[in-house]
Amino acid sequence: MAERFKTPSGLSTEQRENGTDFAPVFDETGLILAIAAEAASNEVLMVAYMNKEALALTLDTGIVHYYSRSRRSLWKKGETSGETQKLIEMRTDCDQDVLLLKVEQMGRGAACHTGNKSCFFRKVVSKKGDVSLVRDANPPLFDPGEVYKS
Amino acid sequence: MAERFKTPSGLSTEQRENGTDFAPVFDETGLILAIAAEAASNEVLMVAYMNKEALALTLDTGIVHYYSRSRRSLWKKGETSGETQKLIEMRTDCDQDVLLLKVEQMGRGAACHTGNKSCFFRKVVSKKGDVSLVRDANPPLFDPGEVYKS
Repeated sequence: MAERFKTPSGLSTEQRENGTDFAPVFDETGLILAIAAEAASNEVLMVAYMNKEALALTLDTGIVHYYSRSRRSLWKKGETSGETQKLIEMRTDCDQDVLLLKVEQMGRGAACHTGNKSCFFRKVVSKKGDVSLVRDANPPLFDPGEVYKS
Repeated sequence: MAERFKTPSGLSTEQRENGTDFAPVFDETGLILAIAAEAASNEVLMVAYMNKEALALTLDTGIVHYYSRSRRSLWKKGETSGETQKLIEMRTDCDQDVLLLKVEQMGRGAACHTGNKSCFFRKVVSKKGDVSLVRDANPPLFDPGEVYKS
C-alpha cells in the first residue's frame, strides 16, 4: 500500500493543529483511537482502534473497519453480527491522535456487542459518595447469545 | 481518599458489561479515557484522560477535571482559559474502560485549546486516494495567543 498519510513528525505543531495535511498519530502499537457517533444524532456509539490498513479501507470502501486488539486482526465491524457501519463523515482532532467517525449504523442498529444501540447505555450515578451504574431506558436490540452463537 | 470504585478484576464479564457496579478500568499508567460531548447536542468536543483523583473530583464537584499527561498533573479544565466544563451526565461503556461526559461548555464555549468549540473542527476528506483535512464552517471562539499568553 502506498503511503497515503503524512508522517506526524514531519509537521510543525501549527501545521498539525491548524493545517490541511492529514498526519494521523498511530501509537507505539500502530493504532489510533476511533470514536463512532451516529451521524444523524451525534450520539456516541462506541470506541475502538484502527491501524493504518483499517483506516485506509474505511476511507476507500465507506464501510468502517477497525483493528481488534483482542483478536489481533483487521476487524470489519458487523461481519459476524451484520451490524456494519456506513461512514458518513470522518474528522480528526487538533493533535490528530483521535478520529471521529460519523456513521450510519446498519443491521439492527446496535453498535454494541451486548445488543445495545450504544456501548454507553449505562449512566454513572453518584449519590452521597456511593457510585453505581444505571441502565438507560433504551431496550437492547438483539440477544448476543443468539447472534454470536457458534 | 476511600476506595469508591470497584476493582474490575473483582467482576465477572457479565457483571462488568451488564451490571450496576462501577468498576472503571484504569490502564497501566492509572488513566482512563474520557470523551466530552456537549450535553445539548451530543457533539463530541474533546478527548482526554482522567486518573482516579480527577474522576472522583469530577463526580464530587460537578466540574470536569482531567489528568494532563504532558504536565503530569491534575488538570481542572478551563483553569487558565476560563473554559470550564459543567458535568451534566456521565456514562461508561460496556467494558468500562471509557467514560462519556455530557457537559455544558462554559466560558466562550470553546473546548479546544486552539480556540475552536470542538477539537474535531477538521474533516478528513479523501478524493481519488488523496487525503486531506478541511476545516468546517464554525469560526474559532478565541485567539489562543491572547488567552494563553504568559
